[in-house]
Amino acid sequence: MVSLVNKDKSVSAPLTSFTLEPLCVPHLRSYMPEKDAQCPNARETGEKDYVNYIADEDYILADIVKKPSAQDDTEAAPQFFQRPSASHVCRAFLRAGPRRSTFFDRKLCKAAVVTCGGLCPGLNDVIYHLTLALRTLYGVKEVLGIRGGWWGFYDGTPPLPLTMQSVDGIQHKGGTVLGAARGGFEPDKILSAIQSMGVNLVFIIGGDGTHRGALKLHNMAAAMKFPVSFVGIPKTIDNDVDIIDRSFGFESAVEEARKAIKCAKTEAQCAPNGVGIVKLMGRHAGFIAVFATLASSDVDLVLIPELPLDVDPNSPFNCLSHVKNVVEKKGHAVVVVAEGAGADVLLSAVQSQQGHKTTADGKQPELPPIGEWIKEKLTVYLKESGIAATVKYIDPSYMIRSVPANAADSVYCLLLAQNAVHGAMAGYSGFSPGLSNNRVVFLPIETLVAKSPIGVNPYGRTIERILGITKQPMPKLRRPSST
Amino acid sequence: MVSLVNKDKSVSAPLTSFTLEPLCVPHLRSYMPEKDAQCPNARETGEKDYVNYIADEDYILADIVKKPSAQDDTEAAPQFFQRPSASHVCRAFLRAGPRRSTFFDRKLCKAAVVTCGGLCPGLNDVIYHLTLALRTLYGVKEVLGIRGGWWGFYDGTPPLPLTMQSVDGIQHKGGTVLGAARGGFEPDKILSAIQSMGVNLVFIIGGDGTHRGALKLHNMAAAMKFPVSFVGIPKTIDNDVDIIDRSFGFESAVEEARKAIKCAKTEAQCAPNGVGIVKLMGRHAGFIAVFATLASSDVDLVLIPELPLDVDPNSPFNCLSHVKNVVEKKGHAVVVVAEGAGADVLLSAVQSQQGHKTTADGKQPELPPIGEWIKEKLTVYLKESGIAATVKYIDPSYMIRSVPANAADSVYCLLLAQNAVHGAMAGYSGFSPGLSNNRVVFLPIETLVAKSPIGVNPYGRTIERILGITKQPMPKLRRPSST
Amino acid sequence: MVSLVNKDKSVSAPLTSFTLEPLCVPHLRSYMPEKDAQCPNARETGEKDYVNYIADEDYILADIVKKPSAQDDTEAAPQFFQRPSASHVCRAFLRAGPRRSTFFDRKLCKAAVVTCGGLCPGLNDVIYHLTLALRTLYGVKEVLGIRGGWWGFYDGTPPLPLTMQSVDGIQHKGGTVLGAARGGFEPDKILSAIQSMGVNLVFIIGGDGTHRGALKLHNMAAAMKFPVSFVGIPKTIDNDVDIIDRSFGFESAVEEARKAIKCAKTEAQCAPNGVGIVKLMGRHAGFIAVFATLASSDVDLVLIPELPLDVDPNSPFNCLSHVKNVVEKKGHAVVVVAEGAGADVLLSAVQSQQGHKTTADGKQPELPPIGEWIKEKLTVYLKESGIAATVKYIDPSYMIRSVPANAADSVYCLLLAQNAVHGAMAGYSGFSPGLSNNRVVFLPIETLVAKSPIGVNPYGRTIERILGITKQPMPKLRRPSST
Amino acid sequence: MVSLVNKDKSVSAPLTSFTLEPLCVPHLRSYMPEKDAQCPNARETGEKDYVNYIADEDYILADIVKKPSAQDDTEAAPQFFQRPSASHVCRAFLRAGPRRSTFFDRKLCKAAVVTCGGLCPGLNDVIYHLTLALRTLYGVKEVLGIRGGWWGFYDGTPPLPLTMQSVDGIQHKGGTVLGAARGGFEPDKILSAIQSMGVNLVFIIGGDGTHRGALKLHNMAAAMKFPVSFVGIPKTIDNDVDIIDRSFGFESAVEEARKAIKCAKTEAQCAPNGVGIVKLMGRHAGFIAVFATLASSDVDLVLIPELPLDVDPNSPFNCLSHVKNVVEKKGHAVVVVAEGAGADVLLSAVQSQQGHKTTADGKQPELPPIGEWIKEKLTVYLKESGIAATVKYIDPSYMIRSVPANAADSVYCLLLAQNAVHGAMAGYSGFSPGLSNNRVVFLPIETLVAKSPIGVNPYGRTIERILGITKQPMPKLRRPSST
Repeated sequence: MVSLVNKDKSVSAPLTSFTLEPLCVPHLRSYMPEKDAQCPNARETGEKDYVNYIADEDYILADIVKKPSAQDDTEAAPQFFQRPSASHVCRAFLRAGPRRSTFFDRKLCKAAVVTCGGLCPGLNDVIYHLTLALRTLYGVKEVLGIRGGWWGFYDGTPPLPLTMQSVDGIQHKGGTVLGAARGGFEPDKILSAIQSMGVNLVFIIGGDGTHRGALKLHNMAAAMKFPVSFVGIPKTIDNDVDIIDRSFGFESAVEEARKAIKCAKTEAQCAPNGVGIVKLMGRHAGFIAVFATLASSDVDLVLIPELPLDVDPNSPFNCLSHVKNVVEKKGHAVVVVAEGAGADVLLSAVQSQQGHKTTADGKQPELPPIGEWIKEKLTVYLKESGIAATVKYIDPSYMIRSVPANAADSVYCLLLAQNAVHGAMAGYSGFSPGLSNNRVVFLPIETLVAKSPIGVNPYGRTIERILGITKQPMPKLRRPSST
Repeated sequence: MVSLVNKDKSVSAPLTSFTLEPLCVPHLRSYMPEKDAQCPNARETGEKDYVNYIADEDYILADIVKKPSAQDDTEAAPQFFQRPSASHVCRAFLRAGPRRSTFFDRKLCKAAVVTCGGLCPGLNDVIYHLTLALRTLYGVKEVLGIRGGWWGFYDGTPPLPLTMQSVDGIQHKGGTVLGAARGGFEPDKILSAIQSMGVNLVFIIGGDGTHRGALKLHNMAAAMKFPVSFVGIPKTIDNDVDIIDRSFGFESAVEEARKAIKCAKTEAQCAPNGVGIVKLMGRHAGFIAVFATLASSDVDLVLIPELPLDVDPNSPFNCLSHVKNVVEKKGHAVVVVAEGAGADVLLSAVQSQQGHKTTADGKQPELPPIGEWIKEKLTVYLKESGIAATVKYIDPSYMIRSVPANAADSVYCLLLAQNAVHGAMAGYSGFSPGLSNNRVVFLPIETLVAKSPIGVNPYGRTIERILGITKQPMPKLRRPSST
Repeated sequence: MVSLVNKDKSVSAPLTSFTLEPLCVPHLRSYMPEKDAQCPNARETGEKDYVNYIADEDYILADIVKKPSAQDDTEAAPQFFQRPSASHVCRAFLRAGPRRSTFFDRKLCKAAVVTCGGLCPGLNDVIYHLTLALRTLYGVKEVLGIRGGWWGFYDGTPPLPLTMQSVDGIQHKGGTVLGAARGGFEPDKILSAIQSMGVNLVFIIGGDGTHRGALKLHNMAAAMKFPVSFVGIPKTIDNDVDIIDRSFGFESAVEEARKAIKCAKTEAQCAPNGVGIVKLMGRHAGFIAVFATLASSDVDLVLIPELPLDVDPNSPFNCLSHVKNVVEKKGHAVVVVAEGAGADVLLSAVQSQQGHKTTADGKQPELPPIGEWIKEKLTVYLKESGIAATVKYIDPSYMIRSVPANAADSVYCLLLAQNAVHGAMAGYSGFSPGLSNNRVVFLPIETLVAKSPIGVNPYGRTIERILGITKQPMPKLRRPSST
Repeated sequence: MVSLVNKDKSVSAPLTSFTLEPLCVPHLRSYMPEKDAQCPNARETGEKDYVNYIADEDYILADIVKKPSAQDDTEAAPQFFQRPSASHVCRAFLRAGPRRSTFFDRKLCKAAVVTCGGLCPGLNDVIYHLTLALRTLYGVKEVLGIRGGWWGFYDGTPPLPLTMQSVDGIQHKGGTVLGAARGGFEPDKILSAIQSMGVNLVFIIGGDGTHRGALKLHNMAAAMKFPVSFVGIPKTIDNDVDIIDRSFGFESAVEEARKAIKCAKTEAQCAPNGVGIVKLMGRHAGFIAVFATLASSDVDLVLIPELPLDVDPNSPFNCLSHVKNVVEKKGHAVVVVAEGAGADVLLSAVQSQQGHKTTADGKQPELPPIGEWIKEKLTVYLKESGIAATVKYIDPSYMIRSVPANAADSVYCLLLAQNAVHGAMAGYSGFSPGLSNNRVVFLPIETLVAKSPIGVNPYGRTIERILGITKQPMPKLRRPSST
């Protein structure tokens, strides 16, 4: 091969060396060192060639976007986020996987599983694989399914025994066999129930709020030197948990959301000056709207909470006139709106309508639903612009989250569930398994929830890709001053 | 929060520092330095806040599984592969993305796109997004779709002009609008065609063989100082390309394969002593079989080329008696077999039947198809074991690869196509965009194909997970001597 | 076989004999008898063995539910509808199919196709098969696709030439390649356009309103002795056209509606005291709601326009307390509501709220949407009954009608389209092909629209089946006095 | 409206009158008249307005294709089948539905359900709705699911109690929860088991062979004056049962078959001179192949058992040269072949290869599989014709029958199951519910199986439609001499 070495100046620059900064995960040995690593991991007998034990010293690098050249390009490049780091420090997360020895004696183990919050594709996959891993990889004899979220710990509902028979086939179904519910977090009652049931492995599937609960339980147990492992499994249909590559079920939800967009496209294409509007989940984060748009490539405008909504007829960034232009050019347009988009605009609209800024009791007034609002706004605008448009509104709502997991999400759920069990058996607590840089790691819940929920980076490359598809106008964003 | 610092010895060990070793990507500036970075990237005018330019010094760390403790655990841990590295060197791949200036002048650009080899979900997505990026991000005026693989460059078939109109909606369809074909790689004819057409950006979608062709074209052009950028986009239904996290279309194929397994499960469950056998693609690599099994969790035996096939009735690792045991216990069993599994066993069987080791002309004899072979083998074995089994055989064959891409694959195709265009416009050549550690990078084709096609690591964690589901017996593998 | 003759008294009763009463279809020969049957049906040459010509004397019996015993059982049996007829008269519809000779000379034929009203799965199938039949069965050289409904005849939009190439593959897509629109029926303009285009075969796909338009055009043309055949193809997502077994696209829509119900079921099952509400299309007819319920069998309450809505807390037929009972018993409930259900109740509610019966201008006030209304009503009722319910609302809206036709609907569209062409070429006009008693017949539009749109028979066997599934309370219906 | 009366001569012909000939269904009253109609149908109390009782004198006309003109057109019209009847006799089938009183006392009822033969979409729907109707419409306390086909009556397998809980949700699953199996029909053992279990209602789901068994059981029971009702429910994936409009599950299977054809089309389109071959079920009847072709409209050649296979290179009806022509014209072709097609040609091929007509033992030699055979034949033919074709072979096999029922089939299963229960409770036996002319009727099994299995009429209108799509050549068929 002809040598085509990269003559770029960066190559000639001295290669940067950097230091690894491991992120610790809480471990029960911190207050019960005598029990640490007392039990050989059962599978070591006989099948050891086929178990890839992970050492407590194995880490996955976290901050992997690097700029080896000496100088930073902050001045030159006006990007605000995801800048490659020239830092000499590189965080690293603990690698997930089975440990050579376990903290818990499998013969004395009793596990509990609970699903909190709303539905998400893959919940049953996680329950299935927690049960499978606990029972067949570690021989845990008793696995209890707590029903109806946190409430099920103390409201008298008998747990569902999770056996290979009772979970048979659930991995192909939407929803959760345990039921789910919001609220009900009463840490004292829950901890007391865990104690009285004799449970020492607790798997808590839920969002960032649920994870904060799990962390509190872990801290309370630690303070009491109560040897229970609390493991969170991040679940959010909105994909708004920090650090991890993506949350389970997200891809399945995007798949369903794309179907709704396809229907909107068909409706829009077939009507005179047709406009199809799809409202998607995402009160605080527009990931579903954004990824369904990328997957579909049939969308002309995406409205998400992270981006400013501009409906001012006189603004050059006015999204209504963008839609008008698209309709005039292509004969139809497709709009995707996340349920949390434009909250500030809606608030102003409501306030100006009511003539004052707050309600009598000082609270913010209730906002109208953005989907119907933008539909009305667009219809009026197009009419006033002389376009007799046909506006069709589609809200798939729960239809995108109550479906079974797609194949990729099923595999992801398996990875999370198995590693949750590996970590719990090893004695880790107050952590969650998660995919980081395409590797499953053990993340301290404290780190995981520090910035969660997060949103789509409004200055990032994903939005750049969205703009490449929709060509929608982007109002100037004020740069974060601190960067 | 109660402090639960990790008292693990690894923490007290001195943190390792690493050296970053960037992997260079060939660039046309190496022989035409005068043209380098002459053209501002068009979008800089007006929208610059929303373009995240990537610098040529931005890298993504490659070897991210690390062991910060000083000593290696080779002795202690008998795993063979994927061992966390204690090396002080960490390779890094060039980060993909738009560059601030381009090598090519968009006004003088003419692009060609070709799809080689067999079908794969997402081909049309890639074609769609190459066209979209070339035309609307860079304003390239002419994009030619070469028809029917390499042949289309010189066999007289007129190219399909790729315009926003001609690609409208293709991203929702299976197959490729350009047609695909094997063979036809005549580098001189192809290069000559490229020259006579005046094409300077060539996008070549295909497997490792096609990539070797692309590399050869790049090298020939470089030797001639002919300013053409050759970009590969790795396409393999079998997911057998080295380095990248996964190949596009793979998840969609696994989704379809899982459907076939579900049918086999239903058939097996509903018949007396039912055995459902599913044959899946994978002549050299069993990734589809393995991931469909993980996604389904309904499989009792997986046979892939990477694992030894043991049908010796006297062997403790005999897979036939495993199936027998499953049928006796559960009443039914599901078997997944990749088309390339057990080639050595089949060869021995054929040879022993023919009484000699090679055919008259010294070649290996043709092997019987493994699917039907194992079906026959199992039927006979079960009958001889006194079990009147009902064996159902399903071969979805091309049905798993001719479907449209699922949503996640569509997004992946968008990422690959856009970055292929970014890289080509910037003047890189002889490279492929690919997902590495969940980031899109520019990979030198030379590196990409060095070890491709690869297979499932028979000692790795994926196989460990398979064994956790199927409980199938695993014959002892001889450890690679060099480790 | 042991003789098990039916000793039933009905057998000993003298068998009734019937008189067949054929239903005539308008034919152009009535005013242009000299042109009748002048052209041999082309395919007679060479392939005649494989064309099953249908004679103008072939009929399909229409009233096929019979009671051969002499006396009627009106007194004894209190059913109101679908009573078997003891009448001596049996209507018969003209059998659809190719005629041995045609009225039109294929060489002089020019056809137009138009789709009116809303979308329906199968529109593109119909367009495809009209084109295929016209072009390849009859050799018609010119087929014009009128765009955007009736408007397209005269608003200057150029027609889409329908060729085998332009319709290739459209049968697998939702929507209509011609676009559709409501309104625009200007008979004079349309007829004048037909004349000036030289079109003599007009295929009009639409609902009962559109059919009334088609009939008017036919009558106007007949009055002018203008030899044009007007053929309707009944299209209604609501399945509310009289006489025919079902309308095309209906089964596909029910399939999608069932998916929404499945999601509602999953949501309901997984939430504490979960109630899933699905709103489905059906402003005047509840067929989609009813058949999706039968297909799903997961529904506890169905509200349709044809049945009284009872939300009076003191009524024994109160549907709210039924839902409460179901939730208390099963832990969750699923409700399906057609968009036109309960209009009278909503009207009363609005009027009592406003204190008067009509608005200032004498019109009826606008009604609130029933879906949200019943959601609110149920939520309040359950709360007041002491049940902390979780109510989830799903409105798939256009998602059930913009999908491609399922396989059965595609075949049905083929049957309708081919026979529409057969009938038009034979010289029939002012008719529609339709499935009656599982046979395709030619129906005079006058007969077809006489009672359309129809609704679900509230006393019929389908509602009986619904009650068998939902167990919902049924208020006494007043029997129609005339029966 | 302008009067456009049909001046056709057939209208002026005297209207034909005809006589109704009811087809009796065996009833247990024939040998136990004292028990007839002793029990009021429970629902009469309280809900009678909502039960549409069907009288034993209610019939559905069967022969509904009529020719009211006096003379027959045998001479003039060369069609062989489905000729409209000028007969004065019109058969009529007993109308299905609930009777005002029942033969069996619900308090003494015990039911058994068995599924025989291969899988078919909808089996679980039927089981679900049999259970629902028996338990909730009639209050039958015990319903037993016999496992594994006929064998389950006597091989010691304990029956599955069918309760609302045990059948919950099964209607959404493929397969049968009871298992199915071929063979095992031992009437004495089965009847003895029925007696010893105290079962008096037996529901037997299976094909024509199974129905012959059910009839035999009925006859044996009748001879013994043993009051048991035997009801068949026709199940055949091949839709090859006589009389009924279609068998349940058929539409679902066609849906899946169409998917395979779509894949074959994609593969063919994307390869140079691509030919996609799809093999579908249908050993004796080509209904699946034929309807999937109509539903897809993407097929260029259909081979079914009912049509002669012509591969003679010198024949004008040679199907190989048809495919060649299509490939040359369109660049690709799609072939659908039913597994039983061309048996005579294969037999000749095998015999000529072996040099004699029968095997040593006088039996017919085993035939090669037609799918692979035609693939080989086509490949060679195209090669010899100078076309370098790419032939792709797809056999979805069991994937088309193990899926859940689509919505329309689910509704059909409900109709069949409910009416099976209505008939059995009323005392009918030796019958099957079935759809005839779009109405559910009770058919004597003797009549149902008299001509079953049937095939596609090779001279009929369906084949005419196939030819309109595929344009494939049709060898002359010899007309049946008797017509």
